[in-house]
Amino acid sequence: MSKLIGAAVIGQSGGPSSVINASAYGAIKTALECEEITNVYGMCNGIVGLLNDNLIDMGKEDPDELALMKYTPSSALGSCRYKLADPDVDETDYIKILEMFKKYNIRYFFYNGGNDSMDTCNKISKFMLRNGYEVRCMGIPKTIDNDLAGTDHCPGFASAAKFIATSVMEVYRDSTVYDTGMITIIECMGRHAGWLTAAAALANACGQGADLIYLPEIDFDMDKFTAKVKEIYAAKKKCLVVVSEGIHDKDGTFIAEYANKNAAKDAFGHTQLGGLAAYLANYIKEQTGAKVRGIELSLLQRCAAHCASQTDIDESFASGKAAVENAVAGVTDKMVGFECTRENGKYTCNTKLFDLTIVANTEKKVPLEWINDTGDGLNQGFIDYCLPLIQGETQLTKVNGLPRFVNLKKVKAVAPEA
Amino acid sequence: MSKLIGAAVIGQSGGPSSVINASAYGAIKTALECEEITNVYGMCNGIVGLLNDNLIDMGKEDPDELALMKYTPSSALGSCRYKLADPDVDETDYIKILEMFKKYNIRYFFYNGGNDSMDTCNKISKFMLRNGYEVRCMGIPKTIDNDLAGTDHCPGFASAAKFIATSVMEVYRDSTVYDTGMITIIECMGRHAGWLTAAAALANACGQGADLIYLPEIDFDMDKFTAKVKEIYAAKKKCLVVVSEGIHDKDGTFIAEYANKNAAKDAFGHTQLGGLAAYLANYIKEQTGAKVRGIELSLLQRCAAHCASQTDIDESFASGKAAVENAVAGVTDKMVGFECTRENGKYTCNTKLFDLTIVANTEKKVPLEWINDTGDGLNQGFIDYCLPLIQGETQLTKVNGLPRFVNLKKVKAVAPEA
Repeated sequence: MSKLIGAAVIGQSGGPSSVINASAYGAIKTALECEEITNVYGMCNGIVGLLNDNLIDMGKEDPDELALMKYTPSSALGSCRYKLADPDVDETDYIKILEMFKKYNIRYFFYNGGNDSMDTCNKISKFMLRNGYEVRCMGIPKTIDNDLAGTDHCPGFASAAKFIATSVMEVYRDSTVYDTGMITIIECMGRHAGWLTAAAALANACGQGADLIYLPEIDFDMDKFTAKVKEIYAAKKKCLVVVSEGIHDKDGTFIAEYANKNAAKDAFGHTQLGGLAAYLANYIKEQTGAKVRGIELSLLQRCAAHCASQTDIDESFASGKAAVENAVAGVTDKMVGFECTRENGKYTCNTKLFDLTIVANTEKKVPLEWINDTGDGLNQGFIDYCLPLIQGETQLTKVNGLPRFVNLKKVKAVAPEA
Repeated sequence: MSKLIGAAVIGQSGGPSSVINASAYGAIKTALECEEITNVYGMCNGIVGLLNDNLIDMGKEDPDELALMKYTPSSALGSCRYKLADPDVDETDYIKILEMFKKYNIRYFFYNGGNDSMDTCNKISKFMLRNGYEVRCMGIPKTIDNDLAGTDHCPGFASAAKFIATSVMEVYRDSTVYDTGMITIIECMGRHAGWLTAAAALANACGQGADLIYLPEIDFDMDKFTAKVKEIYAAKKKCLVVVSEGIHDKDGTFIAEYANKNAAKDAFGHTQLGGLAAYLANYIKEQTGAKVRGIELSLLQRCAAHCASQTDIDESFASGKAAVENAVAGVTDKMVGFECTRENGKYTCNTKLFDLTIVANTEKKVPLEWINDTGDGLNQGFIDYCLPLIQGETQLTKVNGLPRFVNLKKVKAVAPEA
């Protein structure tokens, strides 16, 4: 493979996570140190920044400040939810991207995001290949949803899982403190895959936690749910339930939609969910007469960098680093995921390359064999899978008792003389 | 003052906090080591446990396990919201408590809670005095609301404040990440006093945070609020608002009640609030057409022990310890609060005794001179007051990446032979 000399560009897309910047920093730092890479540019708000010639020069950032990216939540370069058209239907965006690649002599394209971002990366790569422009395109995964195919797990998931398990342990203590009855319903993110909600099971494994956990992998039945809550409440006067925002009935209707029949859809056609915890809390209150509290973990679960897993941070960094190293070595059209072993309680994790075509638009769900027979809890298989991922406390710097997050200068990139 | 030999009993009441057990542990540990105190009993679920002869023997707990109380959120002994009758109207409960005091030879009564708990402590003390039973009654304060009179601040407030400020910094990063417009409304606890909501201002002082902060100390005007949000949103395409659950209009009607005219009341006659963030989010969405997200911090803010202030933990422990030491030295009818100095950036904190009669049923609010002229933010006076309180990271033990909270054996107390 011949040496490819030129600039690199990196963008971040989709919903942020606590560690998406650790991945980006792994790529940026490695690219800045790499002799084949002449310049390192950041896209402001992902592909939208590239389309609008809105790039920043990462080489102009102070290295010590830049290093704070590793512990700063939410895409530091800005994110977008822009969906590129199918190039067979409309090439406009791709032609613009090709112009930008030429203008800045970009030969390395790194895109940091979830399923949709891997799809974007894949489409751009295919277009450039067809048009004879040499550029190496690598996906750097990120999604708290943990639903990317191939990889053992996704950067971002473990930190969200650690926050969820920690919060469930704490809320368990709080919601069982009174001598009076109390039912608590916690809602986690996860539209089609229940990984985040499943993380609540770590609380049970390591202390005390949820009585019932419902994932979108199993059809949700309001009557069975209500009966189960009533049974537990009758026995203990307490019941703690954790549900995924994406739970749905056997006809595929989201339970959250029961409350809001005309839920809006986003640019990707996903139904905008929310308010499930409040809806279920009201429903159970009517059914039981008990005091019921609904808690939606909302954005907190995906940005709680103060409770991030250092394992997740380090792996995310390694993923970004490996993306650059592989691209420079000649690899293209791959996503850098992980291959792990968990033999006899010993966890190992190595980066591994996955085809973008396989990753894009495939969703990995929680295996049914890790869900209990009654469909309302997880078994040891999930615990063994997940527990190693949440180990280690974040080394986030604090100043005045609060996080010290990165502040980028964001110096506008200047194209080299033609 | 003569030596008073006998047993001690301690109870916890009201809404829990992240550090209420640090206070209780300070009292329990000191009492267990004290030669005047023959036995240390814990009330199961506060005064309800005392009334029902449901006491546990703290001396039967393993000392190392007991020490974990210092870092465990939410009342480990259990809590209650039971309100004692006015003894002039109905002495039943007090007579029962006197019987219990005699049965267990209880000469020291420690009650760990907020305003209502100090009232309970005060009423019991007065009744016992009138009935010639010698018992020393001390209040150990706790309230995330920070609204107890006299003391510089209340144990529990700082840890909640630290979690709120941290979360606001994180949510700021998340909610400003897209190139599209976004308005975010975060709801904090605080019915009449805005201390917790004010803590959001620490995020601004130490990084980036809220554009607007609304406390119940200032009448809330929906029209002015809407105009302010529109103005900021027009300028920045982002707006982050933090509101107290207790904001109310000039007629005293809670804004949360706009959504729910028939809000329930609890045993103390407090209106049950909630759902304000969702209500305001919907309202602002209608007014602006923008994407708006409401986030209720809910129970998380009062039980997030993983993000507690070590200063708060240490001070809470000191408060419990001082309560026992003072009682043994002859003091009664006092609450152990704090007297602090903040000269030239140096913070000192010492325990100080306050009369229960003054503390009970008085609410300390955020001084108006710390609120800005437009009534939607805090000034440096508040930052200087609050920032020292949130210093230091919790020394909470983690096992498997998750908190290791206390598990008490709760051995039922046996009364000494008569």
